[in-house]
Amino acid sequence: MSAPTTPADLVILGGGSGGYAAALRAAELDMSVVLIERDKVGGTCLHRGCIPTKALLHTAEVADNAREGEQFGVKSTLSGIDMDGVNAYKDGVISKNFKGLQGLIKSRGITIVEGEGRLVSPTAVQVGDQVYEGRHVLLATGSYARSLPGIEIDGTKVITSDHALKLDRVPSSAIILGGGVIGCEFASAWKSFGVDVTIVEGLPHLVPLEDESSSKLLERAFRRRKIEFSLGSRVSSVQTTADGVKVALENGKEFEAELVLVAVGRGPVSQGLGYEEAGVAMDRGYVLVDEYCQTNVPTISAVGDLIPTLQLAHVGFGEGILVAERLAGLPVVPIDYAGVPRVTYSEPEVASVGLTEAQAKEKYGEVEVATYDLAGNGRAAILKTAGAVKLIRAKDGAVVGVHMVGSRVGDMVAEAQLVYNWEALPEEVAQLIHPHPTLSEALGEAALVLAGKPLHAHT
Amino acid sequence: MSAPTTPADLVILGGGSGGYAAALRAAELDMSVVLIERDKVGGTCLHRGCIPTKALLHTAEVADNAREGEQFGVKSTLSGIDMDGVNAYKDGVISKNFKGLQGLIKSRGITIVEGEGRLVSPTAVQVGDQVYEGRHVLLATGSYARSLPGIEIDGTKVITSDHALKLDRVPSSAIILGGGVIGCEFASAWKSFGVDVTIVEGLPHLVPLEDESSSKLLERAFRRRKIEFSLGSRVSSVQTTADGVKVALENGKEFEAELVLVAVGRGPVSQGLGYEEAGVAMDRGYVLVDEYCQTNVPTISAVGDLIPTLQLAHVGFGEGILVAERLAGLPVVPIDYAGVPRVTYSEPEVASVGLTEAQAKEKYGEVEVATYDLAGNGRAAILKTAGAVKLIRAKDGAVVGVHMVGSRVGDMVAEAQLVYNWEALPEEVAQLIHPHPTLSEALGEAALVLAGKPLHAHT
Repeated sequence: MSAPTTPADLVILGGGSGGYAAALRAAELDMSVVLIERDKVGGTCLHRGCIPTKALLHTAEVADNAREGEQFGVKSTLSGIDMDGVNAYKDGVISKNFKGLQGLIKSRGITIVEGEGRLVSPTAVQVGDQVYEGRHVLLATGSYARSLPGIEIDGTKVITSDHALKLDRVPSSAIILGGGVIGCEFASAWKSFGVDVTIVEGLPHLVPLEDESSSKLLERAFRRRKIEFSLGSRVSSVQTTADGVKVALENGKEFEAELVLVAVGRGPVSQGLGYEEAGVAMDRGYVLVDEYCQTNVPTISAVGDLIPTLQLAHVGFGEGILVAERLAGLPVVPIDYAGVPRVTYSEPEVASVGLTEAQAKEKYGEVEVATYDLAGNGRAAILKTAGAVKLIRAKDGAVVGVHMVGSRVGDMVAEAQLVYNWEALPEEVAQLIHPHPTLSEALGEAALVLAGKPLHAHT
Repeated sequence: MSAPTTPADLVILGGGSGGYAAALRAAELDMSVVLIERDKVGGTCLHRGCIPTKALLHTAEVADNAREGEQFGVKSTLSGIDMDGVNAYKDGVISKNFKGLQGLIKSRGITIVEGEGRLVSPTAVQVGDQVYEGRHVLLATGSYARSLPGIEIDGTKVITSDHALKLDRVPSSAIILGGGVIGCEFASAWKSFGVDVTIVEGLPHLVPLEDESSSKLLERAFRRRKIEFSLGSRVSSVQTTADGVKVALENGKEFEAELVLVAVGRGPVSQGLGYEEAGVAMDRGYVLVDEYCQTNVPTISAVGDLIPTLQLAHVGFGEGILVAERLAGLPVVPIDYAGVPRVTYSEPEVASVGLTEAQAKEKYGEVEVATYDLAGNGRAAILKTAGAVKLIRAKDGAVVGVHMVGSRVGDMVAEAQLVYNWEALPEEVAQLIHPHPTLSEALGEAALVLAGKPLHAHT
């Protein structure tokens, strides 16, 4: 065992979105920081999550364009997907961002330690035979792709998103277990690649955490794209066969395909890392924290997918920044998780911020709702996309929920994020005429309806 | 001459964006409305402007995708542009929106009159031998594509955007006179169609009304796309030749091409319509109004491209609504034209709201600026787009200007519109972590920099 290091202000276990954001902000606030990562900084998001899946989805968009060029007057053909090319493109995007992130971390004087870390006291993390002491410790060990009891991931016929991102071929068919964000994104990309896709979701809707209206619009769009899905019945068995996989549901239905993608969510990476031994309170593998990301152990904080908040990279960023600022003695305010935008980057995209209509009714009693169908939006006609923007306000009050479905709405939810978090009245949004012809007009039109002065909307 | 009609509350001359928006809002406010249009409701924007050009630009995007599929792992080919197909697509989009608009106008009980109208008194417009009396008259006769002195538009070799939108072939080469919004949009689309394009702009930059940094980024992107341009010297002559057109500049340079597109702006349609005779004050063809779109004649208002404000469809919408509400006796506030978002839908797009850096310095003295290069944005790497988001604040104050360049930023400027018009502090924007991975993060990152807490930015 080497001698312990001089204590740093902050020792961070895990260099993903939450961990590195905390490191960057803490260093900016003149704290000394040790950032421990067993693999590569950037974590799931950069290497196995957000970034590579969005690259696949862009390949999918390019393929759709080539396939459907004639609709737009373009003489184009699509002869297939070159998975080596896809992977080179995807890896190029990752590599560019990875280098940028490494440069950023280096420029802020953060000490990076490569290796498996383990919490050995409320103020120390051990890596190999070196112990890193910290005035504070931040746990940010992230998440892994979960499976279901009785389903064995073999990495070839029964795979998780980790394997799906490294496929060297386009399968002819695939069953996707789970109709949440990850499942819908892969279903969308693969369908564009020419795969016969079937989604199995145990709950009654795709993207079941979204407003029901968004789920229904996505389902309609997927039906039109001939993406198959089965809702409301859970998987009873997954069996590999000579040439593929067979999936049986509790309702008796059976599906066969070349492979099964298990996309039933992500679980916290917390086993065997010394958390319990250090006295950290946990629940089903998640580290429990208060609204300041503080655990029950005063020197230990936790952020990101490891804690039971929304598993999103930008939530990790926000939590990491909050912890760094709190430890530096700055005033901090808890994150309003309802105010964090959520995006499913399928075709069409689904995006939202704030409450669903059901949640809003629960909280406010009476609510007012306006839905602007993209059928009335010029830009949507140009993109040949269908969908809607739905605004929910508390009776005579502020906008408390925004729900969008359509191509490219993921870049529109940033405006909705301001509207929700700044508690804007529809009247205040309606006063500002949105640029024409953009998709963003749909949000403006919905606000005009709620403000009682519809422009391009039937009343 | 037929007998005059029963006076309506509002007679509107011109059914484009400004005219029909006023009609819709006035009808909603229980005013009786007569809307006079010589061609088709929807005007320039829908039939000869925003909508068809954006359709061409989407065709261009689809073509680029097919051409560059290999970069994304897509085995695609592009064998050309089918102009019949392009026109069918474009006309389909127009037709869909036109039908929607007609339905909307009908549903609100507005009287539509087809024909050439002429102002015959401060309260009357004549169409054919019918006079339409109104308690108020709104002039909304819009604009036409201008030419330069000495340049004759022949509609085949020397054309305006009206002709360019109806081309039945892809020219091999084109010279575009004017590097403003319209010129840059056609240059961008045509280049994607395979045309050799040269832009001639007399001012020192493309999109010269934008912040200089945006102009430079667009120029860099156009250079990379091999769109030629000549800046800072004006046209001295345009001559048709046996097989095309020759353009000479004041600096002695000459260019030859198959055709010339004259895109030097749009002038007001006001000649011979009886405006002067009714005593309406005018300047170089524009109708002059106060900040409530009221002319010097108490019963006459004017909106849209006919008045010397920004020539944008959504400005027309805003002005039309303002006039209707004022005439109905509602409280109205003048439009802050600096707060109207501007978008150039070229590839890459240019979007802005608020003041340029030069204007901000002029108005506020000391300003602070943060520019976030899209090179640091994950989504931009996925889209392979370059550009930046620039935020300008008054020293320690609110954001007073936002400038964006990059693919799809036109849909991002809606967020910037709220930031500018609601006089948000960068700190208030920085508090909200944007969804990852989206282009909109670039605005968040720029705000984080101005708030003194950069996340993914070198400092």
